[in-house]
Amino acid sequence: MLSYQEAWTWLLERARPLNTQQNVSLSQACGRVLAQPVRAGMDVPPHDNSAMDGYAVRCAEAQGALPVSQRVPAGSAPLALQPGTVARIFTGAPIPSGADAVIMQEQAETAEDGLVRFSAAPQPGQNIRRRGEDIASGQVILEAGKTLTPADLGLAASIGLASLPVLPQLRVAVFFTGDELVEPGQPLGEGQIYNSNRYWLVPALHKLGCEVIDLGHVGDALEPTRQLLRDAAAVADVIVTCGGVSVGEEDHVKAAVEAEGELTLWKVAIKPGKPLAYGKIADADFIGLPGNPVSGYVTLQTLVKPFLQKRMGLDAPSPQAQRLPAAFSWSKPDGKRSEFLRVRKVAGQLQLYPQQGSGVLMSCAWADGLVWLQPGQQVKPGDELAYLELT
Amino acid sequence: MLSYQEAWTWLLERARPLNTQQNVSLSQACGRVLAQPVRAGMDVPPHDNSAMDGYAVRCAEAQGALPVSQRVPAGSAPLALQPGTVARIFTGAPIPSGADAVIMQEQAETAEDGLVRFSAAPQPGQNIRRRGEDIASGQVILEAGKTLTPADLGLAASIGLASLPVLPQLRVAVFFTGDELVEPGQPLGEGQIYNSNRYWLVPALHKLGCEVIDLGHVGDALEPTRQLLRDAAAVADVIVTCGGVSVGEEDHVKAAVEAEGELTLWKVAIKPGKPLAYGKIADADFIGLPGNPVSGYVTLQTLVKPFLQKRMGLDAPSPQAQRLPAAFSWSKPDGKRSEFLRVRKVAGQLQLYPQQGSGVLMSCAWADGLVWLQPGQQVKPGDELAYLELT
Repeated sequence: MLSYQEAWTWLLERARPLNTQQNVSLSQACGRVLAQPVRAGMDVPPHDNSAMDGYAVRCAEAQGALPVSQRVPAGSAPLALQPGTVARIFTGAPIPSGADAVIMQEQAETAEDGLVRFSAAPQPGQNIRRRGEDIASGQVILEAGKTLTPADLGLAASIGLASLPVLPQLRVAVFFTGDELVEPGQPLGEGQIYNSNRYWLVPALHKLGCEVIDLGHVGDALEPTRQLLRDAAAVADVIVTCGGVSVGEEDHVKAAVEAEGELTLWKVAIKPGKPLAYGKIADADFIGLPGNPVSGYVTLQTLVKPFLQKRMGLDAPSPQAQRLPAAFSWSKPDGKRSEFLRVRKVAGQLQLYPQQGSGVLMSCAWADGLVWLQPGQQVKPGDELAYLELT
Repeated sequence: MLSYQEAWTWLLERARPLNTQQNVSLSQACGRVLAQPVRAGMDVPPHDNSAMDGYAVRCAEAQGALPVSQRVPAGSAPLALQPGTVARIFTGAPIPSGADAVIMQEQAETAEDGLVRFSAAPQPGQNIRRRGEDIASGQVILEAGKTLTPADLGLAASIGLASLPVLPQLRVAVFFTGDELVEPGQPLGEGQIYNSNRYWLVPALHKLGCEVIDLGHVGDALEPTRQLLRDAAAVADVIVTCGGVSVGEEDHVKAAVEAEGELTLWKVAIKPGKPLAYGKIADADFIGLPGNPVSGYVTLQTLVKPFLQKRMGLDAPSPQAQRLPAAFSWSKPDGKRSEFLRVRKVAGQLQLYPQQGSGVLMSCAWADGLVWLQPGQQVKPGDELAYLELT
């Protein structure tokens, strides 16, 4: 058996990052990963402008009653300020040359003759936002590797960028095997079970940022499985399936992968989990998750997720990145395998789902993360534990 | 001026939850909010089944050499186990009636005559997963109000559900005003600025789970703005715009909303932020965010997000839900306004973006959350602060 760390390292060594990038429009870019740093190609603001609705003035002249010589709304191109006058100006509008301050309209009074008087003396520069004050041309505004948020996109738009260079989406083909599987919504015959793996695996891969090619369900037969593998390898970077890769006689996936490419089967010392297959079919990676939904789900989160992240061109996060205190006890650890307990973060502490042995996804649906225990590790309340957030 | 809490309460009182629901297929349901509890309509597993590849036996007979009377793959319907025989069985396959344990294949040896011998004596019930062991028919497996995750969908699939009842998406129409605005990718004329509000607002609303109807850009003119408001109110539950709702003369949005419906303008004692408009046009809510991107962004996160969440039928989270320790000092608070500092959570502590006064979204792009300070509140390292996660 491989230890968890050994399996993690072995698998990550085989993850060849995609070394390409693509440009996507801002409206398609949320959640994508920036492929290179973004530098500003302009100053922001692009011109000195007013921070207020009010009057642009020459400070030295702003006493007594003054005529309004022009009106400068946002978006206009003002004339130079005539000596002995003020300009009516609005928030965001360019400062006329010659003006050196803006007096807010609350400090101004317009008489019947149209002349304006001010109740306060201005300071030079007052209420003026300077060109380049927020962003200087050439400055890096977004770092490579960042998952783009709404604020990032607003920031890119503010310097005029209509698209951004992002990492391409990893194409992941999935299929599901087993004569006993029935799709939800269909009646269940004797000895049959519903295909649940399809319904967590596809959205989990989407949430990881993959483009998912769902090739559906294939029965327990060698030739159709070989054909599906060839089809998958032709369109995908990675092929993921659930089940069919342990040592049992009924597993045709193993034979099909060996016939079409190469396969390494592992027993990984993790609980839930254990069987894991990695192979190559033409240029595509093959990953075989265990068929039990909880084992498959935990193996995806703990081993396959970092593999896919590195494959996409991301830094694969260390499984020890987050440490949080336990609000539970765990007195009967597995002596040989790393256990991944399903937990939930409540007020900064980790709470345990009471039934860890379940064969169904109840514990995973309840949890927001996994705790990684070393073989033999017991837990007392307050112990700091390695916490992996679920996708 | 309204305090932040007063504005929060005032706005939430006006948020009428959508009281409908819709069924969506599992493949469309990730990220949607469950409208009612889901109960299991069946037992899981639906029949007693084998936890291992091996042999189904009668414990009392499992000594000596025994013939294999049937072969039970997963998905098959076994016959009753003939006395004095064993059944070859595979993981997940139904237990034949009469059998009371499964012996794993690693503890079995098949002789040339086809008879099987076992190296260990079985215990009754061994390696049998019982019907209903994981989920009992009638049990609530998913609670109303839950945002559906991949594991939830796998769990629903495992009990045969092909669709789930979810809250409908709130339809939010957005438009953008201002003669000075230019779309990114276009050249910038004198006095013009790029429309950045569109590019953070639309994805932020998507991330909140809204269906966004982007009506584009309208110039500073009354009639086109009135027409756009009528169009928006005809298709949307809520209309959101940025800018045009302060007291300046150039703001046509205010006049247009007042002409088409009703409007309340607030000054909210928050920084960044301050101007906020709420109105009604026909049956739609109108929300006017400040036009400055940082003010608009912070107002969306702190006031409009809880409004929209309640409007969708969710519990609006309290702004004091999370408290985390500061890793920074803040010695010059605003005496009159609540400040929302842009911070990032690093190793459980809050770090401050150094330039809080910025007019652009740099601080918001850097941050993962906001710290809510009361008017006059100073911060020392280690102080526990109210932290709001950004969408």
